[in-house]
Amino acid sequence: MSQCFTIALDAMGGDHGPAAVVPAALRALNRHSGLVHLILVGRPEMVREELHRHGGQECEALRIHSASQVVDMAELPSQALRGKKDSSMRVAVNLVKEGVADACVSAGNTGALVAMARYVLKTLPGIDRPAICTTIPCLGGCFHMLDLGGNVDCAAEQLFRFAVMGSVLARASGTDSPRIGLMNLGEEEIKGNGQVKRAAQLLQASTLNYIGYVEGDSAYKGVADVVVCDGFVGNVALKSSEGVAFVISRYLQEAFHKNLLSKLAGLIALPVLHSLRRRLDPRQYNGASLLGLRGVVVKSHGGADAVAFERAIDVGILEAEKAVPRLIDERLREIFSQEQLQT
Amino acid sequence: MSQCFTIALDAMGGDHGPAAVVPAALRALNRHSGLVHLILVGRPEMVREELHRHGGQECEALRIHSASQVVDMAELPSQALRGKKDSSMRVAVNLVKEGVADACVSAGNTGALVAMARYVLKTLPGIDRPAICTTIPCLGGCFHMLDLGGNVDCAAEQLFRFAVMGSVLARASGTDSPRIGLMNLGEEEIKGNGQVKRAAQLLQASTLNYIGYVEGDSAYKGVADVVVCDGFVGNVALKSSEGVAFVISRYLQEAFHKNLLSKLAGLIALPVLHSLRRRLDPRQYNGASLLGLRGVVVKSHGGADAVAFERAIDVGILEAEKAVPRLIDERLREIFSQEQLQT
Repeated sequence: MSQCFTIALDAMGGDHGPAAVVPAALRALNRHSGLVHLILVGRPEMVREELHRHGGQECEALRIHSASQVVDMAELPSQALRGKKDSSMRVAVNLVKEGVADACVSAGNTGALVAMARYVLKTLPGIDRPAICTTIPCLGGCFHMLDLGGNVDCAAEQLFRFAVMGSVLARASGTDSPRIGLMNLGEEEIKGNGQVKRAAQLLQASTLNYIGYVEGDSAYKGVADVVVCDGFVGNVALKSSEGVAFVISRYLQEAFHKNLLSKLAGLIALPVLHSLRRRLDPRQYNGASLLGLRGVVVKSHGGADAVAFERAIDVGILEAEKAVPRLIDERLREIFSQEQLQT
Repeated sequence: MSQCFTIALDAMGGDHGPAAVVPAALRALNRHSGLVHLILVGRPEMVREELHRHGGQECEALRIHSASQVVDMAELPSQALRGKKDSSMRVAVNLVKEGVADACVSAGNTGALVAMARYVLKTLPGIDRPAICTTIPCLGGCFHMLDLGGNVDCAAEQLFRFAVMGSVLARASGTDSPRIGLMNLGEEEIKGNGQVKRAAQLLQASTLNYIGYVEGDSAYKGVADVVVCDGFVGNVALKSSEGVAFVISRYLQEAFHKNLLSKLAGLIALPVLHSLRRRLDPRQYNGASLLGLRGVVVKSHGGADAVAFERAIDVGILEAEKAVPRLIDERLREIFSQEQLQT
C-alpha cells in the first residue's frame, strides 16, 4: 500500500456509536500510520469528547466531519432515506460519492445503509441491489458468502452475478482462482429449485472456478472460497450458525460452572478455553461488504465493539486499496454483453 | 401406552444397516417390553446373524420379514421406486400400508423414502409432498422445524399447512398450545419474500398460536416450539448448524491437544467435556418425521448408530401411539374447507 486512502466512518452508528468507533479509528490509524486517513462523521461534540477520552486529537489523518442526525436502528429504510439527509450514515456515504473518501464504514441500520448507498452511489451496470458478502470462518480458513441481505427470490442470473462479485472480492483478499460453490440442499444435480439449477448451468459454462453445489455443512468444512445463495437463504444460514455457536458456548460455560469440581477444571482449562474463544471470536470476521455499488461500503455488525469495528475498517481499507468496485465492474463487462447488463 | 404398537424397521438402511438397527431394536424392545412389537425387514440371514451376535432371537415381539433388495444411498428416488419393489425400505412402508405395522423407520436414502412413502401410503388431502420435520435442541429445550426436505419454492398456503402439521406434532410430543414461528430474515413486518409475508397473514388470521417471524439465531434461543420454512431454507439452515457445531467441536479438540499443558487441562476437564458432549449429542435428536402422509414414517439419519436409531424408533412409537397422521388430517379438515384441501 503506497497510496494513502481515506475512509469515512459513521461515528454514530451501531449500538455503541462513538464509544466503539473512535477507539477503533485510533487503533487502525496507529497500525496503518501514514497510509490511511480517517474521517469521523457525526455530532462533533460527542465525537470530540470520545476522542479526548482516548487521548486522541484531530489532525490531518483524523478529521471530524459534522452530521447532525442519527439513523435509528429500527428506522424504516425509506424513512431514513427521506428524513435523515444530514445523518452520520448518509454524510459518510456522500463523502464517498464526492470522492472525498475512498470507502465508508457503518455499524448502523443495515436496510438504511443499503438504501442510502444504492441511492447515493448507484449500483454497477447489471446490478439492481447490492449483495451483502461476509467472511465466515471454517476448517482451514474462511470463505466468503453472499448474498446475506435483501436480495430475496433471486433469479439464476442474479446468483451468477453474485458469484462473479464474490470471486473478485475473494481474489482481492488474496485467494487465486477462488473456488465458487452454489448453496443447495444436496450435492446431486437433480436437487434444488429452478433458479439454483439454472445458475449452476450458467456457472458451469463460465470461466469462473465453479466447483458445484455445496451444502451447509460442507461449506463449514472449507470446500469453497465463495458460497453463493439468495439473500433469504444466506441470512437464515448465517443467523442459524450464530445461534448454534451461542448455544454451544452457553452450554460450555454452564458445564464448567456446574459444581466446585467442574469450576476447578474450568480454572485449569482457562488458558485453553481462552485460546478457543480467540479462535472463534466473531469480532475478527466483522465487516460485510456491500458489493455491486459504485463505491466501497462496509457494514459492521451493529453490536460491534472497538476491536470488531477496527476489523470492519480494515475491510474498507482493503477494498479501497484493491479498487474492488472497479474490478467488479470490469469483470461484469468481461463476462456479460452490454445488452445483458442493461436488463 | 396400553395398546401394543408394531413398528417396521428397515434393517438394511443407512450406513451401518443391521449392525445399527438390530441392537437398537433389542434395546427398544427391552425398554418398551410388552407394549411394542418390532419387525426387522431385510435379508433374513444377515438380520438373523446380527440378532444372534447380540444374543437376541426371533419371537412374537421381534419378527424378521424378508426383503431381498436394498436401496442404495446414492440411488435416484425414481429408480428406487421403479426398481426396488422388494427392498427393505419399500417392504417396511408396505407393512404400514397393509396395516401390519403402525409405523416404519428407515435410515436409508431420504429421497427414495419420501418417494416410496408418498407413492404407497399417499398424502393427506391438501398435502402434495410430505414435509420433513425434526427436533432441534435449543436453549431451554428443543423446537420442531419443518420443512427440511423436498418442498422448495413453497407457496404461502403450503407454509401454513406446515405450521398446522408441526403444531399437531409438537402437541403430540407434549407441548400445549405450541408457539409457531415463521422463519424470516428479520423480525420486522416489511421483511421477507412474498410467500412468507402472505403466510404470516394466514397464520395471524388462524387459531394457531402464531408468534410472528423468527430469525435463525432467535430460533436457537428457544423463542418458538415450531419453526416453519420452505425445504430449501430449512435444509440449508440445519446443515449449516451441523457444520458450525462440527467446526467448534473440532477446535475444542485441537485446543485441548495443543501441548502437554493443554492435554493435562483436557484430562482434568474430561468429565465436564463428556457431560457437554452428552448434552450436545445429536443422536438424542435423531428421527425426522415425514408429515402429511396417511401413515407414520420416520427417517433416521443415515449415519445413525444403535443409540441414534433407537431414538428414531421412539419417534415412530410416539407418532403411532398418538395417531399423528389422523390428528393432522382432522386438524387440516377443521381449518380448511373441503374445497381448499382439494387444490
